[in-house]
Amino acid sequence: MKKYRLMTPGPTPVPESSLLTLARQVTHHRTAEFRALHQEVLEGLQEVLQTKNDILLIGASGTGGMEAAVMNLIRPGSKMLVLASGKFAERWATLGDRFGAEVVSYELPWGEPFEADEVARILDEDPAIEAVYGTLCETSTGVGHDVEAIGRVVQERDRLWVVDGISGAGLMECRTDDWGIDILVVGSQKALMTPPGLAIVTVSPRAWKKIETVDQRGFYLDLLAYRKALKTFDSPYTPPRSLIAALAESVRLLREAGIETVWDNGRRLARATRAGLERIGFRMAARRPADALTTAYVPDGVDAKRLLDRLETRFGLKLAGGQGPLSGKVIRIAHMGQIDQLDIVSALAAIELVLVEQGHSVQLGTAVAAAEAVFAEGEESD
Amino acid sequence: MKKYRLMTPGPTPVPESSLLTLARQVTHHRTAEFRALHQEVLEGLQEVLQTKNDILLIGASGTGGMEAAVMNLIRPGSKMLVLASGKFAERWATLGDRFGAEVVSYELPWGEPFEADEVARILDEDPAIEAVYGTLCETSTGVGHDVEAIGRVVQERDRLWVVDGISGAGLMECRTDDWGIDILVVGSQKALMTPPGLAIVTVSPRAWKKIETVDQRGFYLDLLAYRKALKTFDSPYTPPRSLIAALAESVRLLREAGIETVWDNGRRLARATRAGLERIGFRMAARRPADALTTAYVPDGVDAKRLLDRLETRFGLKLAGGQGPLSGKVIRIAHMGQIDQLDIVSALAAIELVLVEQGHSVQLGTAVAAAEAVFAEGEESD
Repeated sequence: MKKYRLMTPGPTPVPESSLLTLARQVTHHRTAEFRALHQEVLEGLQEVLQTKNDILLIGASGTGGMEAAVMNLIRPGSKMLVLASGKFAERWATLGDRFGAEVVSYELPWGEPFEADEVARILDEDPAIEAVYGTLCETSTGVGHDVEAIGRVVQERDRLWVVDGISGAGLMECRTDDWGIDILVVGSQKALMTPPGLAIVTVSPRAWKKIETVDQRGFYLDLLAYRKALKTFDSPYTPPRSLIAALAESVRLLREAGIETVWDNGRRLARATRAGLERIGFRMAARRPADALTTAYVPDGVDAKRLLDRLETRFGLKLAGGQGPLSGKVIRIAHMGQIDQLDIVSALAAIELVLVEQGHSVQLGTAVAAAEAVFAEGEESD
Repeated sequence: MKKYRLMTPGPTPVPESSLLTLARQVTHHRTAEFRALHQEVLEGLQEVLQTKNDILLIGASGTGGMEAAVMNLIRPGSKMLVLASGKFAERWATLGDRFGAEVVSYELPWGEPFEADEVARILDEDPAIEAVYGTLCETSTGVGHDVEAIGRVVQERDRLWVVDGISGAGLMECRTDDWGIDILVVGSQKALMTPPGLAIVTVSPRAWKKIETVDQRGFYLDLLAYRKALKTFDSPYTPPRSLIAALAESVRLLREAGIETVWDNGRRLARATRAGLERIGFRMAARRPADALTTAYVPDGVDAKRLLDRLETRFGLKLAGGQGPLSGKVIRIAHMGQIDQLDIVSALAAIELVLVEQGHSVQLGTAVAAAEAVFAEGEESD
């Protein structure tokens, strides 16, 4: 009878109406019906991601989208700047190495946000850098980077701005066009509330121009093949039709709610989670915390793994632990997917109860009260 | 109120219990539960595909699996032999070119089956050929190639045997290990009765040895990353969890039926379809027809496109047309997925009715009777 409560930073809970879409019988994809669905989901995504750029749907995990954003844009020997401060940002560097790029790193300790001024300085010093690879929300540390300010300095210097928005875009404010993002990569299984299996890649006209000059673009991840098929809302290879239908439904829900409302909600959930956790001795891992998830160091004396295990066995509450240097030191709570205020309250209550059960001194209800205060304050203006 | 009857060679109808699996809430994949599911589906696939080799599940279309089978195995400049006689076989050559392989082609007109003796002759003449790329069932022409006999000559000469089994493996007899198949690529959306989005790749120890010597294996399609994760039944990147659960259910159904029974059924469905179509003037496009689908030239004077369109508008029956040189000349009927004897009878009746409606002289019921005769004969021994 135990409930399952998924609050990991991907996959996230999928709305019922999207799940039911998946249970429908499979239909063929070389049809007017599929093309209409494809067109609808792309128009919806343009609104959700705030872009007029082309959007490509690739049957792959987010990593496949990241690989496409490197392989299609960077010729062997070309210089790329990677903003590296966490597990997923480091993947950009790994990909650059794999494809023979010359990788320049602006590295910071995990948890630190990048400064646009420093990016500007690096670009001014090295005119050979063709593209800057960054992250909207670093899922390992919970940092929300200043994609807007960095985008401005990248664009002013006429380089390309590539952003991993896998964990965040769709819940966190992300104005793709206004912020000068040339390629944005998103995964279906995060803020877009769809099962894993789809990478979403937006490409600006500037980025297309560059891609056209790159010889080796692979085959399955060759973005030009997707662009060609897009003209008739087709897919170059058999698309994951069922997942696209589920994505269409989830995007419909996001549009109904209004994307700015979704961003506001995410902001409030994140603020309440931080307030609650800090009240009972947790410390934020991120100096500029993201809205998509909260990464927090457990209080002194608390065993993070034991806490997470018990949250799952006692309450079916699935949070995530730390990765890399944060392994065993933090917990991660996502605010993406169909997560609301009471889910946050419940999660904080569960943490209080398990900490007390495991012998730590916690005043029951205090984390919950701190979160509720944020939610109550939010309502005053509604 | 019109029914939809999907009989295209991919996607194919998905059984209800597999569809319902997809409607379940998404759960996390870094869990014991996912690893148990992963292990179960791999064991099931080993039985269905008759192999003890490693099986890798990649979130991609079948094309992604084909790219992996070229990029991971063939170094630039290496020689590969492609058995080319249809749209999908030609994809092997395209992939080889894309990755800098030296592609040698054994080319035949569309619809012709390859001769093992000729493969042997080509390999004997050119010891530099490292691998042979072929097709179990060529979906464009409906030819079932003699993968067993060709595999024997390839193995005797110590080359690698790579087979595109995307449209067929799981319905057509395919004894991966006995037939010496080093890499077999299968798609989820064909005989495995699962929505599109998963490529299944089997890899022999001989193929692994070769893959270990290849430097550039990409990233998302790097098979060594999948092998490493497989040790703990994990996936290197976020796997398409829901699709894997649906695949597990469909594989369970195939095992319950018994894979040899499934092969026998497929054989009978294909034989009955051919008997029915030939009775009303269709002509087979394949000299060695596959069990997975039937590709047939329409009778003289019949407009294939008009026939297919009317089958869909009048009966909701979705068949496929021709590709490349067969465009506008043939119809293609699949026997894969949850297709049974009465589906074949219905499809033949629909074809009879539409041909008569469109002014062609067809004796109503004759194609149906020819198919029924095959089914009746089959039952005698049951």
